[in-house]
Amino acid sequence: MQIKVAVVGGTGAEGSGLALRFAKAGARVFIGSRDLEKAQDAARRISAQVSPAEVTGHTNKDAVAAAGIVVLTVPLSAQVETLKSIRDSIAPGAILVDATVPLEIAIGGRLSRTLTLWDGSAAQQAARLLPGVPVVAAFHALSAEALAKLDHPLDCDTLICGDSAEAKAAVTQLAALIPGVRAIDAGPLDNARLLESAAALLISLNLRHKVKGSGMRITGLPSGADQ
Amino acid sequence: MQIKVAVVGGTGAEGSGLALRFAKAGARVFIGSRDLEKAQDAARRISAQVSPAEVTGHTNKDAVAAAGIVVLTVPLSAQVETLKSIRDSIAPGAILVDATVPLEIAIGGRLSRTLTLWDGSAAQQAARLLPGVPVVAAFHALSAEALAKLDHPLDCDTLICGDSAEAKAAVTQLAALIPGVRAIDAGPLDNARLLESAAALLISLNLRHKVKGSGMRITGLPSGADQ
Repeated sequence: MQIKVAVVGGTGAEGSGLALRFAKAGARVFIGSRDLEKAQDAARRISAQVSPAEVTGHTNKDAVAAAGIVVLTVPLSAQVETLKSIRDSIAPGAILVDATVPLEIAIGGRLSRTLTLWDGSAAQQAARLLPGVPVVAAFHALSAEALAKLDHPLDCDTLICGDSAEAKAAVTQLAALIPGVRAIDAGPLDNARLLESAAALLISLNLRHKVKGSGMRITGLPSGADQ
Repeated sequence: MQIKVAVVGGTGAEGSGLALRFAKAGARVFIGSRDLEKAQDAARRISAQVSPAEVTGHTNKDAVAAAGIVVLTVPLSAQVETLKSIRDSIAPGAILVDATVPLEIAIGGRLSRTLTLWDGSAAQQAARLLPGVPVVAAFHALSAEALAKLDHPLDCDTLICGDSAEAKAAVTQLAALIPGVRAIDAGPLDNARLLESAAALLISLNLRHKVKGSGMRITGLPSGADQ
């Protein structure tokens, strides 16, 4: 069955990159934005690169309505407002994938520093705002630049965590649509702060080493750790 | 010139593993422990595996006195007390490498959860306790089990951070003594909390995937990022 995925914040670099890769792999992609025209533009850009592509642009609210998986890729400063705006439109049984990294830049600080959130992590904040929706933290550390280079596989793992094994299995399947990416189960949603921190670490390495696409591979795991 | 390194907490699994690798590479190793006999036993065990080895066991206080680099590998619960006990014995110009991971187990909690320290990180706590000593955070995430397998290279990077470029260069050189390990500069000491969090993430993966030696490789950096 075709995966139906909404990318909320799908006009940003990270969201667009994910949407591009999902579309390339044959998923039905709904790009969401606060601005309908921007969402439609982003969908057109993706359609021009991938053929045949099933990508359409919508307001965030409309984008999530038909999706089985909703991927949230907005800055921390927009996370709460965006979640409130979509929560009544998320389809019953749908999963939210939160990729938010709680960076200090949200309050005018540095890109490489994290904020401590009351809930412990951005993903737990999302879960509190969406009662009843299984939340999986994932895709924080995938380089937007690497995602955009459609001819190149990525060279990085994505750590995922959440409290629903079924939802994590669905996200593992979604991650597998991106060549080179391996999803690794990092436990309950409670661990999301460690994943968000690891993403901040990669951002910090990008700044220091003047690259845009540092990634992380986990070594020493048994084969099948990504199942 | 021969590297002179003291491993404080050198009778623990992590400290012994590092001491073994440093000795194997020809460094002069001073193993420190609160218990002199345990330190001497550990030194004998290493000498039995590596020949010729220059490894001796001492109290922590005596171990650090002759070393150019002091590596601290104690649990968080012993970090402050140990630093206070050695600070008057550290040689002028010597560097402290702090590998402490602030885990909740220090207060009876879980191995895979971190504590938030007043100073921001265990390494910054060490720096506060050792005014004038250059502190580098490093070696948190190296698997003790992998270090102990002398015939096998490791498959992981060690992220290092600190405020002295010279001290970081010395630690990079020390890391290079361990086959397979690449030190990657992760910026100022202020970033140590991200490194400590990344170590907790690996501990969490070890528990979840029932392994003892998960590690981390950073991808997408320019060659020479470890310089």
